[in-house]
Amino acid sequence: MIWTSGWRLASAVSNAGGLGIIGSGSMYPEVLKEHIQKCKAATHSSFGVNVPLLYPDIDKLMKVIVDEEVKIVFSSAGNPSTWTKFLKEKGLKVAHVVSSVKFAKKAEDAGVDAVVAEGFEAGGHNGREETTTMVLIPMVRDAVKIPILAAGGIATGRAMLAAEALGADGVQVGSRFAASEESSLHQNFKNLITQTDEGGTMLTLKQLTPVRMIKNKFFHQVQEAEMRGASKKELAELLGKRRSKTGMFEGNLDEGELEIGQVAAAIREIKPAAKILEELWNEYVEVKRKIVFD
Amino acid sequence: MIWTSGWRLASAVSNAGGLGIIGSGSMYPEVLKEHIQKCKAATHSSFGVNVPLLYPDIDKLMKVIVDEEVKIVFSSAGNPSTWTKFLKEKGLKVAHVVSSVKFAKKAEDAGVDAVVAEGFEAGGHNGREETTTMVLIPMVRDAVKIPILAAGGIATGRAMLAAEALGADGVQVGSRFAASEESSLHQNFKNLITQTDEGGTMLTLKQLTPVRMIKNKFFHQVQEAEMRGASKKELAELLGKRRSKTGMFEGNLDEGELEIGQVAAAIREIKPAAKILEELWNEYVEVKRKIVFD
Repeated sequence: MIWTSGWRLASAVSNAGGLGIIGSGSMYPEVLKEHIQKCKAATHSSFGVNVPLLYPDIDKLMKVIVDEEVKIVFSSAGNPSTWTKFLKEKGLKVAHVVSSVKFAKKAEDAGVDAVVAEGFEAGGHNGREETTTMVLIPMVRDAVKIPILAAGGIATGRAMLAAEALGADGVQVGSRFAASEESSLHQNFKNLITQTDEGGTMLTLKQLTPVRMIKNKFFHQVQEAEMRGASKKELAELLGKRRSKTGMFEGNLDEGELEIGQVAAAIREIKPAAKILEELWNEYVEVKRKIVFD
Repeated sequence: MIWTSGWRLASAVSNAGGLGIIGSGSMYPEVLKEHIQKCKAATHSSFGVNVPLLYPDIDKLMKVIVDEEVKIVFSSAGNPSTWTKFLKEKGLKVAHVVSSVKFAKKAEDAGVDAVVAEGFEAGGHNGREETTTMVLIPMVRDAVKIPILAAGGIATGRAMLAAEALGADGVQVGSRFAASEESSLHQNFKNLITQTDEGGTMLTLKQLTPVRMIKNKFFHQVQEAEMRGASKKELAELLGKRRSKTGMFEGNLDEGELEIGQVAAAIREIKPAAKILEELWNEYVEVKRKIVFD
């Protein structure tokens, strides 16, 4: 949720009964500090911080998180054994994002409290196995004892209930909240999400780290390069350093990297986060009742 | 289900309370006739025939189906408006396989009785949009009024219930029955399915028609050709005419095209079809009860 989930979105979700998460991957340590402080001022409920473990200044991020007495960390993109013990000793709860059974087991072994099992349909960085949420969750359920949060493709109450049926204890909702009023994405990109059709996103950059993004001009440049066998070096140069900021935060829909899940095709309206949560919950309850009593 | 579902598997599934389907895509018309006749002799229950509409001798296949008084056709890989009216006039029920909302609507407009909405995780031929079952089913549910059968990633009772939550009226189960005792796949391939790990299948041949298959030697040849920008002609020549027969029916695990779903990673045992159906149903009922009462 880089460039997407700052204090506004996180506190809105927490105030509405969810667990809001600040995405720190696009923040300098001092920026994260400011977001945490503003989030604490805006909600009395719990919230968490997502930390990509490959973040260059990870020590500084972790110091901010502990100093600011954040209670929950969602770690991703890295080895959970590096930081889990430290965070647990400080009294935090840790969930780690995985895209395979293999890494779910490793996360459990590293002592995390829960795993977020994220399918191929999710936006942004993704696993090389391309395992979908439908296939991934029952396998992770059989493999680990700790709670599982399902992610990838979940933007409706129907999908929440499906995740529960598959064996998840909860869900992580990304794309749906990306198109919320409180998300910090550029308005151009929010509007584009609501116009994205099926097949409008694709997993690409597979020679580097696979990322799901909108099929815009930049995407097609990447595809063209990959199809003619471009080297990793050339691809890394094409990607550059601030593609996601250019697209997601600054709203350049041609040149930017626009990370969003496949489920964008089902998102037609930008809404307040509280309204999204209410609709998700109401549909979940309604479909559950229907399945039981019809 | 080419090279997979002949009269033995179809009748076993129908006898166990499911709707068995004969896959005609790999059969000459006279071979299909024999399978239908043997299936009728082996079960008093209904069964269907799957027909890829791009089959070269489609007229002859359809004549066999009507002459043999088959009651249900599952059509795929082609335009449903070509044959639906003919089949409906003969009193048959028609379901059409789609991988997108767009084609689900077209199938409904063509007058089919149901759509099979098949996600990216499914084995064999697949859609270009790469939409997963989790994302596809709720969108199709909102778009059409006719019944929906969910397909792709469904090999457990958990996934059956998830499909129901997503809005499906039923499920189509492929890969799980491919690894049944009654399937006509070569024993080598059945054994390989039970050893396939996560990431062991991949959607490839995207320049031609996307197909999900096991990552064997042939797969890597295709990938290598695609990565150096091989022409469609070269890819078609590499594929050749009998790759799937070589692998799936004759058991050549290096040179053959081995079509199977991503969910192979969750299939560890070859079982009788009746046992598979019983386990699917029992798990479905058990998980449903648990979700309601826990």
